[in-house]
Amino acid sequence: MTVEKRKALIIVYTGNGKGKTTAALGMLLRAWGRGMKVAMLSFMKNEDANFGEERAARRLGVEMVPMGKGFTWLSKDLSRDEAMARQAWAVSQSKIASGEYDIVILDEITYPINYGWLALEDVIEVLRHRPPNVHVVLTGRDAPQGLIDFADLVTEMREVKHPFQAGIKAQPGVDF
Amino acid sequence: MTVEKRKALIIVYTGNGKGKTTAALGMLLRAWGRGMKVAMLSFMKNEDANFGEERAARRLGVEMVPMGKGFTWLSKDLSRDEAMARQAWAVSQSKIASGEYDIVILDEITYPINYGWLALEDVIEVLRHRPPNVHVVLTGRDAPQGLIDFADLVTEMREVKHPFQAGIKAQPGVDF
Repeated sequence: MTVEKRKALIIVYTGNGKGKTTAALGMLLRAWGRGMKVAMLSFMKNEDANFGEERAARRLGVEMVPMGKGFTWLSKDLSRDEAMARQAWAVSQSKIASGEYDIVILDEITYPINYGWLALEDVIEVLRHRPPNVHVVLTGRDAPQGLIDFADLVTEMREVKHPFQAGIKAQPGVDF
Repeated sequence: MTVEKRKALIIVYTGNGKGKTTAALGMLLRAWGRGMKVAMLSFMKNEDANFGEERAARRLGVEMVPMGKGFTWLSKDLSRDEAMARQAWAVSQSKIASGEYDIVILDEITYPINYGWLALEDVIEVLRHRPPNVHVVLTGRDAPQGLIDFADLVTEMREVKHPFQAGIKAQPGVDF
């Protein structure tokens, strides 16, 4: 009997180029098209609630959790940003561990890891012990080497040319 | 009076890594979320009509044209693949020139260009003379230098690690 080797993946989109969050959104869309369940959690502060992706997710009925949503964690020992990132990670852990999602996207999570707000070892432990059917997508610049080593699929988005260099502004529907 | 420098972009996702078509799909979703009009044309043969992205596009009501759709161009001088690619390009030109779309995605178009089936100069001429409001996204490996030079935004998706190397098969909802 041959057993097809198929397993849920840890996917990392990193690098200094455009397209990391965008590729995660593309995965969200493709999975949604197949009737799979997706949650996307953001680890970057988001002052503008009208991002195209949030509107789109709402229209799709896909769960998208901006950082700071339901934020109640008050501590004198933590900056507000760090506390929000830690809370977002707590929510992420519960989503991953629930096994209810086919794909959990941790958008821009490399930043709080690289700031030292989340321990890489803790993140990898949660990924390692996740239910076997759950794909996890992690995005952000400068993915730490330990995460790259643990991941199944890693793509580096490398900036070859960027229009802001030519003085062109970010545009709704294209950049955000 | 200050004029904001904003123009429709030529965006290229190239490189040997995963995420090129996926990032284009993410742009499609983000734009759809903002109520913009998007068309996505494929330049790769697609035997499996059940790709997650096609299902998703159908559910969104976004126009996605697989290569070979409505194919009627018969010629003794061209291979079937070349004729299909040329027809897809003819359809693409009409979509771009119509000005009806905010974003036109030419998925995997670098292949027919690199095969010599579409002349790079012709493609660039069409991009150069497009209506000023139309963003065009082009994807595929080995984007020719002339296209990179002409584009506004170029990201190279570089493969750092690929699960097929570890014997894991492509999976619905994740890879296609």
